[in-house]
Amino acid sequence: MEGVGEEEMEGVDHLAHERNKSEFDVDAMKIVWAGSPHAFDVSDRISKLVASDPGFRKDNRSTLSRKELFKNTLRKAAYAWKTIVDLRLSEEEAAKLRFYVDEPAFTDLHWGMFIPAIKGQGTEEQQQKWLPLAYKMQIIGCYAQTELGHGSNVQGLETTATFDSQTDEFIIHSPTLTSSKWWPGGLGKVATHAIAYARLIVGGREHGVHGFIVQLRSLEDHSPLLGITVGDIGMKFGNGAYNTMDNGVLQFDHVRIPRNQMLMRVSQVTCEGKYKQSDVPRQLVYGTMVYVRQTIVADASCALSRAVCIATRYSAVRRQFGSQNGGPETQVIDYKTQQSRLFPLLASAYAFRFIGEWLKWLYADVTQRLQANDFSTLPEAHACTAGLKSLTTTATADGIEECRKLCGGHGYLCSSGLPELFAVYVPACTYEGDNTVLLLQVARFLMKTVSQLGSRLSSKKPVGTIAYMTRVEHLMQCRCGVQRGFAELSADLVEAAVAHCQLIVVSKFIEKLQQEIPGKGVKQQLEVLCNIYALFLLHKHQGDFLSTGCITPKHAALANDELRSLYSQVRPNAIALVDAFNYTDHYLGSILGCYDGNVYPKLYEAAWKDPLNESVVPDGYHLYIRPLLKQEIRTARL
Amino acid sequence: MEGVGEEEMEGVDHLAHERNKSEFDVDAMKIVWAGSPHAFDVSDRISKLVASDPGFRKDNRSTLSRKELFKNTLRKAAYAWKTIVDLRLSEEEAAKLRFYVDEPAFTDLHWGMFIPAIKGQGTEEQQQKWLPLAYKMQIIGCYAQTELGHGSNVQGLETTATFDSQTDEFIIHSPTLTSSKWWPGGLGKVATHAIAYARLIVGGREHGVHGFIVQLRSLEDHSPLLGITVGDIGMKFGNGAYNTMDNGVLQFDHVRIPRNQMLMRVSQVTCEGKYKQSDVPRQLVYGTMVYVRQTIVADASCALSRAVCIATRYSAVRRQFGSQNGGPETQVIDYKTQQSRLFPLLASAYAFRFIGEWLKWLYADVTQRLQANDFSTLPEAHACTAGLKSLTTTATADGIEECRKLCGGHGYLCSSGLPELFAVYVPACTYEGDNTVLLLQVARFLMKTVSQLGSRLSSKKPVGTIAYMTRVEHLMQCRCGVQRGFAELSADLVEAAVAHCQLIVVSKFIEKLQQEIPGKGVKQQLEVLCNIYALFLLHKHQGDFLSTGCITPKHAALANDELRSLYSQVRPNAIALVDAFNYTDHYLGSILGCYDGNVYPKLYEAAWKDPLNESVVPDGYHLYIRPLLKQEIRTARL
Repeated sequence: MEGVGEEEMEGVDHLAHERNKSEFDVDAMKIVWAGSPHAFDVSDRISKLVASDPGFRKDNRSTLSRKELFKNTLRKAAYAWKTIVDLRLSEEEAAKLRFYVDEPAFTDLHWGMFIPAIKGQGTEEQQQKWLPLAYKMQIIGCYAQTELGHGSNVQGLETTATFDSQTDEFIIHSPTLTSSKWWPGGLGKVATHAIAYARLIVGGREHGVHGFIVQLRSLEDHSPLLGITVGDIGMKFGNGAYNTMDNGVLQFDHVRIPRNQMLMRVSQVTCEGKYKQSDVPRQLVYGTMVYVRQTIVADASCALSRAVCIATRYSAVRRQFGSQNGGPETQVIDYKTQQSRLFPLLASAYAFRFIGEWLKWLYADVTQRLQANDFSTLPEAHACTAGLKSLTTTATADGIEECRKLCGGHGYLCSSGLPELFAVYVPACTYEGDNTVLLLQVARFLMKTVSQLGSRLSSKKPVGTIAYMTRVEHLMQCRCGVQRGFAELSADLVEAAVAHCQLIVVSKFIEKLQQEIPGKGVKQQLEVLCNIYALFLLHKHQGDFLSTGCITPKHAALANDELRSLYSQVRPNAIALVDAFNYTDHYLGSILGCYDGNVYPKLYEAAWKDPLNESVVPDGYHLYIRPLLKQEIRTARL
Repeated sequence: MEGVGEEEMEGVDHLAHERNKSEFDVDAMKIVWAGSPHAFDVSDRISKLVASDPGFRKDNRSTLSRKELFKNTLRKAAYAWKTIVDLRLSEEEAAKLRFYVDEPAFTDLHWGMFIPAIKGQGTEEQQQKWLPLAYKMQIIGCYAQTELGHGSNVQGLETTATFDSQTDEFIIHSPTLTSSKWWPGGLGKVATHAIAYARLIVGGREHGVHGFIVQLRSLEDHSPLLGITVGDIGMKFGNGAYNTMDNGVLQFDHVRIPRNQMLMRVSQVTCEGKYKQSDVPRQLVYGTMVYVRQTIVADASCALSRAVCIATRYSAVRRQFGSQNGGPETQVIDYKTQQSRLFPLLASAYAFRFIGEWLKWLYADVTQRLQANDFSTLPEAHACTAGLKSLTTTATADGIEECRKLCGGHGYLCSSGLPELFAVYVPACTYEGDNTVLLLQVARFLMKTVSQLGSRLSSKKPVGTIAYMTRVEHLMQCRCGVQRGFAELSADLVEAAVAHCQLIVVSKFIEKLQQEIPGKGVKQQLEVLCNIYALFLLHKHQGDFLSTGCITPKHAALANDELRSLYSQVRPNAIALVDAFNYTDHYLGSILGCYDGNVYPKLYEAAWKDPLNESVVPDGYHLYIRPLLKQEIRTARL
């Protein structure tokens, strides 16, 4: 299970016959998948570095107790940092290393939320004070926003930050049980500091929710500071999965912090107790959201492609039924039922990769415009990333579980890697915006856009991913009805929002194919995948297309025929298309998905490592099994 | 979290206002759900017995290591047996007790597969010898069918049973690695005996796969017998879940068993080495499959209703957004997006309950007919149970995960009960027939039926759930095309099989409503749920209805409007409709779903019980956190 993939794999390649079948240049496709030769090089180098270092092994995760598991994660995080320091890795390389270590840890929040929050919401002065400490990990930060009673509705948070002008301090307080901070990663056991969000109260007046830098633990002995009650919120879905993370609970009992620990880039409280806005545009916050959600979309393509790689390779190894004259049985990947479930997910993995790439461009574009005080594309970019976050994470979570089922019974074993991948992935459907809530935001944005189409007062023209609306005259007629009953029709509006996002993914995939793409047969393969993705969606949602008269039943049937023919075209290239992800066996973490396809001996060997197999006769035999067999149950001590 | 539900709950009922809203007689609905006053009585009594006995507590499962978890399950299984013996429970009560103990264990296979296999496939003599031992648990049995390389394709099993006429024995042998028995529950660490399936070879000739009773372990010291290699196959999906079960691996090295340990009810091997069929019809095997799959359908309604109960209660407790003038926020159950996802699942839980009830009748009917040598309904009954097993387990697995998502972030905590419920449930989609393979069987049966419709040679008339086919003349025209390309079109045929099964569920729900159902408002509520179930399916599959011209877009829109109005009708009754399942808090195993709705204090309290909270400063601080903070990472020993 552990190893560095093709280079160091010894012995027979059981999938060689599959690799020989492929009709395109896999190495060229690896560059396309990675995004650039440079990105490929960094990924390739760092992933092999991690895979070959026993300090990063992860195949023992599922049998560790919570405490052992957590301690092991602390070790790995420190070891990763040591590696980064020792090897003088660049920021890009360091980020890749954390990615390939592939274990949720407090460092994710430190680097991914704490530091960006200070960068985005802190003043120059605050950045100069806190960032160097954070960059060197002299302090470890977390991001304490959600509470026991509030997640999606950030404006409903109950924690208070009351300004005391006498001491020039804020008093951070948790007035109720439901105001306990709840979920922040890294908070439970590790973080020394938090960005805590609280309702700002100055001179008895409320000014909404703001962020504050609060020290939680002593930097000397790690004990919680006065007024701080902090702990872990307990076990979560899966064996290892997010149980390596100390998602935390936190209560403040009138905790005092200096005034200059409120993040003051956008609004300030003066020492006289005056609340004022700075001239920095509030819209900057949306820029950060675009950034975070764009990374989530990129992660979706990683997680889905990983599951697809496992399921595809195993589908080529596994044989069942169809033996003729004592010959080998049929590879399950040759069954149309398997193909019709697996290949749309393969196509989705590529589609999400390219939409992630495009979102990276979008974020850069938005940032540039913000710097030039151009906010015109921000609402569209915000809606677009919200919708794509929702679409890709839902499809990925469902897709991983579908891949697990496509591996039959053996997919249920932890050694398949898929249960853990699912459990560790699904929170993405909830964090950084619940997927349904996000789709409602998209729907609201779409309705607003539609309602302004006919208005002469509005000079706004739909831009970017909603530009098509100007061309659709009849949308204007929908206006009134929809505005009347938004809440009533919200379930249907969510479906409309999904359709809008699917349109974006399909069109960006098509745009990608209009670029030049080098490598023998590479573009052809991507065209097949693009068509599969589009036609699969059409098939899945044919009701919408039919009921709106966009297609006829005849079209729907033709699309279905075409889909089947596309599956046949993908089939010989399937293994090569997942090889192009360039994942090491270490990163995949799956016996079913190992590069050489030597599944059964590895499964058999792994089984014996379970703690239950340490003794032939199990612990508990004398107390609980023997009394049954010997008919001594009535007198047994249980 | 632990407790016996409403009766012994102290303090405030936070859902009282919801319960007061309901418009029907909940107690009468409880009887409908249970199936009869007697069934309700037994369930109610036994579930409370289990809930009130600390010997059966289960709230600590997720933090136990594999070995502790397994040992605890052994204890519980012994304790359950002691309780059954001490209280002289009836067979019905004993089965209910095992059900409410709610933890997969070796006893499931002993009672659910080993004993039924001997009853169904053993001769009178064999039954007289083995059943008394098994009933008293003097031996513990498992069911060793699947192998590392073979699951669905039973005829492809590789284990051999070669008759040796010299010694009047069979030699059971695993000729390859892939022939290792793999997955059988109870095999790994507990079972003393197995029904092992193997290819029968007599005088050099193969006679297909047969069952054999093989002793695995010494009854004195539990050590594996000569030639037996046996162990556990390792960790599976989820924290507790099926890790309480010792799914096993088993290799036979020329293990000899007496000839009379082949199960010989249907076919025999004589001491002279003659293989012959008895006059017992082979179709009996199908009767057993109908039985097992019928219980799986019944279990589906239990698992789904449990998840729905949790999600519904929590949706009434949880509030988010929509506060006006500082008043309370909106209960999330009032959002249409929540209703449109939750209420179809509530309706499905009831639908599956009634289809399970009907399948029980069908099994009784088939059994009676078999005894009278009437095999006419068997193919239809077999296809019908196969399809319904597939339909209900897929919908239930997806439904549990949907319920988890409907609980937002907190649904990801083990204390919500939902991660474990999902992980422990999903194998139902794979065992006893992979759901896709089963649907292909249904599709094949449907195509065969259709192809015979027009045939003058065939005297067979479609019966039971396929009787509608005789009325559909145009189906006859589809015949040729479909027969030509079954494999090619299999993905579409699977969709057709699903539609057929959905029709069965809907029609049996409607039939149920044609019976007299006592209790104020009970029937009305069921009618609303039935309509939701049917219209939800129509909405979900509107593409099929539209493309075949069964409905117009106008109809589809009307159906959707009606669905929304039905959701509003269910809303005030939602809590009472899940109360009618009569589940104890112990059985639900969910803080989010507790009867009194007092969610937040219980979540807060439960968090502190995590092992990580045993110390304020975590294990590993000095080794792995402090070196970071103190900038001593380069010299740290990691």
